[in-house]
Amino acid sequence: MKKPHHILSTLLCASLAAAISPTGAFAKEGMFTPEQIPGIAGDLRATGLNLDPATLADLTAFPMGAVISLGGCTASFVSPNGLVVTNHHCARGSVQFNSTSENNYLENGFLAASMAEELPAAPGSRVYVTLQVDDVTERVTGGLDPALEPRERFAKIEQRRKALIGECESEPGYRCQAASFFGGLQYKLIRRLEIRDVRIVYSPADAIGRYGGDIDNWRWPRHTGDFAFYRAYVGPDGRPADYAEENVPYSPPHILEVSAGGLENGDFVMAMGYPGSTSRYARLASVRQTFDWQYPEFVRFFSDWIATIEAAAPEGSDARIRYASRLAQLNNVLKNLKGQIDGARRNDLVGRRAQREAELNEWIAADPHRMMLGQAIGELDALSEERAAEAKRSYWYGNALRPQLLGAAQRLYRLAHERTKPDAARESGYQERDMAMLRQRMSVIDRRYDPAVDKAEWMLFLRGYLAQPADMRIEALDEAMGLSPELSDEELSEKLDGYYEDTVLNSLDTRLALMDASPEELDGHADPFIRLAAALHETQMAREEAGKVRSGRANLLNPQYMRAIISWQQSRGHAAYPDANSTLRVTYGTVMGGSPADGLLYEPFTRLEGILQKDTGEDPFNSPAAQLDLIRADDYGDYYLDSIGSVPVNFLSDLDSTGGNSGSATLDADGKLVGLLFDGTLESVNSDWDFDPDITRTIHVDTRYMLWVMEKIDGAQALIDEMTIVR
Amino acid sequence: MKKPHHILSTLLCASLAAAISPTGAFAKEGMFTPEQIPGIAGDLRATGLNLDPATLADLTAFPMGAVISLGGCTASFVSPNGLVVTNHHCARGSVQFNSTSENNYLENGFLAASMAEELPAAPGSRVYVTLQVDDVTERVTGGLDPALEPRERFAKIEQRRKALIGECESEPGYRCQAASFFGGLQYKLIRRLEIRDVRIVYSPADAIGRYGGDIDNWRWPRHTGDFAFYRAYVGPDGRPADYAEENVPYSPPHILEVSAGGLENGDFVMAMGYPGSTSRYARLASVRQTFDWQYPEFVRFFSDWIATIEAAAPEGSDARIRYASRLAQLNNVLKNLKGQIDGARRNDLVGRRAQREAELNEWIAADPHRMMLGQAIGELDALSEERAAEAKRSYWYGNALRPQLLGAAQRLYRLAHERTKPDAARESGYQERDMAMLRQRMSVIDRRYDPAVDKAEWMLFLRGYLAQPADMRIEALDEAMGLSPELSDEELSEKLDGYYEDTVLNSLDTRLALMDASPEELDGHADPFIRLAAALHETQMAREEAGKVRSGRANLLNPQYMRAIISWQQSRGHAAYPDANSTLRVTYGTVMGGSPADGLLYEPFTRLEGILQKDTGEDPFNSPAAQLDLIRADDYGDYYLDSIGSVPVNFLSDLDSTGGNSGSATLDADGKLVGLLFDGTLESVNSDWDFDPDITRTIHVDTRYMLWVMEKIDGAQALIDEMTIVR
Repeated sequence: MKKPHHILSTLLCASLAAAISPTGAFAKEGMFTPEQIPGIAGDLRATGLNLDPATLADLTAFPMGAVISLGGCTASFVSPNGLVVTNHHCARGSVQFNSTSENNYLENGFLAASMAEELPAAPGSRVYVTLQVDDVTERVTGGLDPALEPRERFAKIEQRRKALIGECESEPGYRCQAASFFGGLQYKLIRRLEIRDVRIVYSPADAIGRYGGDIDNWRWPRHTGDFAFYRAYVGPDGRPADYAEENVPYSPPHILEVSAGGLENGDFVMAMGYPGSTSRYARLASVRQTFDWQYPEFVRFFSDWIATIEAAAPEGSDARIRYASRLAQLNNVLKNLKGQIDGARRNDLVGRRAQREAELNEWIAADPHRMMLGQAIGELDALSEERAAEAKRSYWYGNALRPQLLGAAQRLYRLAHERTKPDAARESGYQERDMAMLRQRMSVIDRRYDPAVDKAEWMLFLRGYLAQPADMRIEALDEAMGLSPELSDEELSEKLDGYYEDTVLNSLDTRLALMDASPEELDGHADPFIRLAAALHETQMAREEAGKVRSGRANLLNPQYMRAIISWQQSRGHAAYPDANSTLRVTYGTVMGGSPADGLLYEPFTRLEGILQKDTGEDPFNSPAAQLDLIRADDYGDYYLDSIGSVPVNFLSDLDSTGGNSGSATLDADGKLVGLLFDGTLESVNSDWDFDPDITRTIHVDTRYMLWVMEKIDGAQALIDEMTIVR
Repeated sequence: MKKPHHILSTLLCASLAAAISPTGAFAKEGMFTPEQIPGIAGDLRATGLNLDPATLADLTAFPMGAVISLGGCTASFVSPNGLVVTNHHCARGSVQFNSTSENNYLENGFLAASMAEELPAAPGSRVYVTLQVDDVTERVTGGLDPALEPRERFAKIEQRRKALIGECESEPGYRCQAASFFGGLQYKLIRRLEIRDVRIVYSPADAIGRYGGDIDNWRWPRHTGDFAFYRAYVGPDGRPADYAEENVPYSPPHILEVSAGGLENGDFVMAMGYPGSTSRYARLASVRQTFDWQYPEFVRFFSDWIATIEAAAPEGSDARIRYASRLAQLNNVLKNLKGQIDGARRNDLVGRRAQREAELNEWIAADPHRMMLGQAIGELDALSEERAAEAKRSYWYGNALRPQLLGAAQRLYRLAHERTKPDAARESGYQERDMAMLRQRMSVIDRRYDPAVDKAEWMLFLRGYLAQPADMRIEALDEAMGLSPELSDEELSEKLDGYYEDTVLNSLDTRLALMDASPEELDGHADPFIRLAAALHETQMAREEAGKVRSGRANLLNPQYMRAIISWQQSRGHAAYPDANSTLRVTYGTVMGGSPADGLLYEPFTRLEGILQKDTGEDPFNSPAAQLDLIRADDYGDYYLDSIGSVPVNFLSDLDSTGGNSGSATLDADGKLVGLLFDGTLESVNSDWDFDPDITRTIHVDTRYMLWVMEKIDGAQALIDEMTIVR
């Protein structure tokens, strides 16, 4: 199988790449754990790192000690007073939460004139500071008999992980994870300080912070000021505390200095962050399932779903506002899915994965000692096929359960049952440590639910469900709802009306109160959604059990597969790194443009003037007049980059990133903050499955643009003064 | 007013443009008439032309003598046996005309195994060979009293032009134009041989010839094999003749040699062609009218129109096939309009035009002798405003007359009246010389009309018309159709049903027969569309008369405006060139990439491998399997270009082109054919109004790709052998 991109890129290097990629370097695949740093120290130095690589391996040292998680996004400390910089899109929910029609901070931006005027972030906002990472593999999987029944294996591992977490969190103020690496070949206990008083300090207006909006999302060239500032507060005793006036700024162990100049095309950069999830080691069966069926099916389904919401919540309606974020999310996923499908086709993902598996098989066959690995992989493939078949079979059933109040009812019903057990024995997600999150999920419905739209969605879901052959339908659901394919649209509609007319779950107070209900109370409850949840409970539990049996098998097989991968890679001189799992990782490489397609080149930097070009005066290309005037006046301040003749707005690099990396500190060779990672190009998104060094590019907002906006547009001089600005 | 592109482009030159534009040259604005060549000979040489510039000024010499018009497209002779090369999209109608479900030449391509198997091109196809161009300004405008009434002036000029054409065409076999240049400051009589027997010789399959289809249309990067071959035939006596078996290939006075190698980024190129129309000297009033109202309104209207057709002619229906070309045309125009609107905004067209007019005014004010020019321009602006207001007022009335059978009825009715006059006195378009074209228009309806769709369109048009205030409605139309804004949709629909049920114009025989009808016959005709045409006739004529009065005013004012422009430009060292008017022009410049937007670069060439990247297997990205295999096998043949590491497919240049240039011979510095001009980038389309040298790029198919396809895919070796291939 030939790889056209590789050929093309080689050609490009000969003719044009000199201007684009001065070092001629290829993207460095790898989201490395800090402990892997020593193993790649040589390449880090060769790529341009000036810091001692060893320092990157120490989570409590500079610069890793300054990098924090917001849960879903990454951020960094940039002042001794707990000032945190992250992406605008990571903090936007907090800005929205504080906005009113009189004080529309989304539209106007928000800048606290003093610490006293900083506003509490959205409920549930957290700052997590990773303090310690310990290998606990032995404590999780040690001594487990390979002959253990899968369900038993799964239970033992879960139980041991929960015990580790419970122990780790016994002192309040910490949030711990027992994270699985390499498919369970390794477990690490990660202890994180959980700061609960987080306040929004400064966020530029949407017209800067999300300039280009959904249209430019995943796109280059880009001109987005995707930055915002939080501040972390703790109690007067220095320990995490709920929001209170007497709380004081948290003093971080390390902070990043902010660069106001110097970064050039070809320079070394690295990003520290919490990438969420990748599938680089997924087996062919799973790849096929995903790209031959799942993603194309999602594209169809999400398109219908979007059309359904748009019809039920017409533009300008109150309902449309409630569903704006759902629509944005669906459109975003749709764009990403199409990018993934295109990328998989262009890159022949299936062919390449088949080839990799063939090569791995060859390596296994070459040594009889590897026979056991080969057998485990064969079993894993059978499991992958089973899981794929099951996912397909239950796909429409899953869709049929999407309505929001049914989801709430199912969660409440499950909670009532879980609460009958001791906390440590409860299912993850229903323990005491999860209650804040559960309450949060119950609350958010109030802002995002409209019964007419929810019903229109349910009609779509159930129509799809009822169109499936009988073996893809679930008797419990059909029976509980009286569903049959013969139902006319009118009959189905009337049936659903009953749910929305009779439910009491549309009240937040009721939902929150029911979090304390007993199973008996819920079994006797008249609410139609709760009755449906009760009717489905047994089926759901049986399905979950079957899933846990499969997980138990995976618990045994995946580590063997990953052991084979690691040894095989080693035999070829490569260091395998674990798939992303929301833990702290390092990726490094170079500022560089790229070629997304034959005939097209990306420049490494965008310029202020590009904003003038794009501006239409209409959202999302409605830059503030003051900004347009400054650009027209060539007012570059101290942030001018000679080689591009302007202030750099965004830049590209060949770093290896994915969702969750948003807000990641982008550091230069000396560890200075030169940007914030906020997106990847659409051509790169398939790298979640198969990293393509020729085409993968990550998008960063340049700190020079950030400082230019702070100084020239928003008058945030006090914050600039609070940070350490270097050149 | 600052020009952001110019700034950016200067910056680009400093940093990146070396790779993109090796000469650092800017696009050369200008579609020069052959007579202007001597004036730009120095720059032609400096840009890289090796030929003696003087030879380009001689229409009967090489290479201009080999360049021909197809009426709407350009083409060139490439063999002594009348072989003609042009764009695939220029010859596609002829391929379609000859296609049947058994012999689908669009899908499979067409290659005549021998001359005997060449097929007649679509009815009305012509090859026009320009033989002579004479300045006839004096004969058209000489001795006209400036005090003449505008209507009289218009009539005199029309009469003189018709007389010149009549005289020129008195010998059969010629088609002449009395073309106006510089807004009527200059007139030229152009004598063209009109070859009527044109046959299709070779056209690659759509999957090559229109690869990328409507999606890639106006886009770069591009991978379209937009070439096809005709052959011109004449009677055994060597004179133009209708199609006949005994006809013989035409022997052109000159042919172009075809280059199989050598063209590089930065090389000199020029294109000879027949650009249709530009508005580079339009006054601000007209620019404003167009961009503030007309184009945005068209975008709305065409979008509605497309939706109406798509709803009335569902995908897969017979009607959809009939309306496929209309839909493609509307979508194409829509894309172009949006490109123009974006370009005008980005480039501040209105501001720049206002500034140009202010500068011109300043130049006029600087010399009292120029006072008269200033006065004429003032009157021209008043006229522009009047015309703009009238266009706006009659816009919806015009839309209401769009139904196809109403158009046919109006044309027939007018023809009957015109035929009562001597031929020379008839309105242009209704003279004997126009009958073939008129018959053609009557015929084409058969392939593109469906009563249900036509009615749905008319409903849309009339609903729009009826929504206008009373002063934008026309009494004659309201009365004849019984229209009023109070009509319900049902009432209007029922009314229109009567037209479609009772009409006889849906028969081609009837339409053709009625071309011989007298006014009396038509006045007594029962057909509802003919009755409507009769009822509107007086109104139409009155409106036409008013238009002719305005044209008569323009006939006096425009030449003075253009005289001012020419003198003013001269005073600044620039040579003014006339707006495009479908006459033979030369544009020259350089092979070069570009930057369509900040952060994005176009490479000058695309490669075979880009086809692999784009290919999805589905129309319009469904390259033949044989082609994909050849590309995968690196089978470049003799057409490899080292600097890009592949066979070049399409290339970009900075030439100044517009619609009508399609098929233009692209020649290198020695006059060898290196490509065929076939498109412009979407960012360039606004150059019709205001040439932007930084952004305007023209797209060519490379002759190396043409020859590669001919040799490797289609086995057209005989045609290659018939041409003169050079390196």
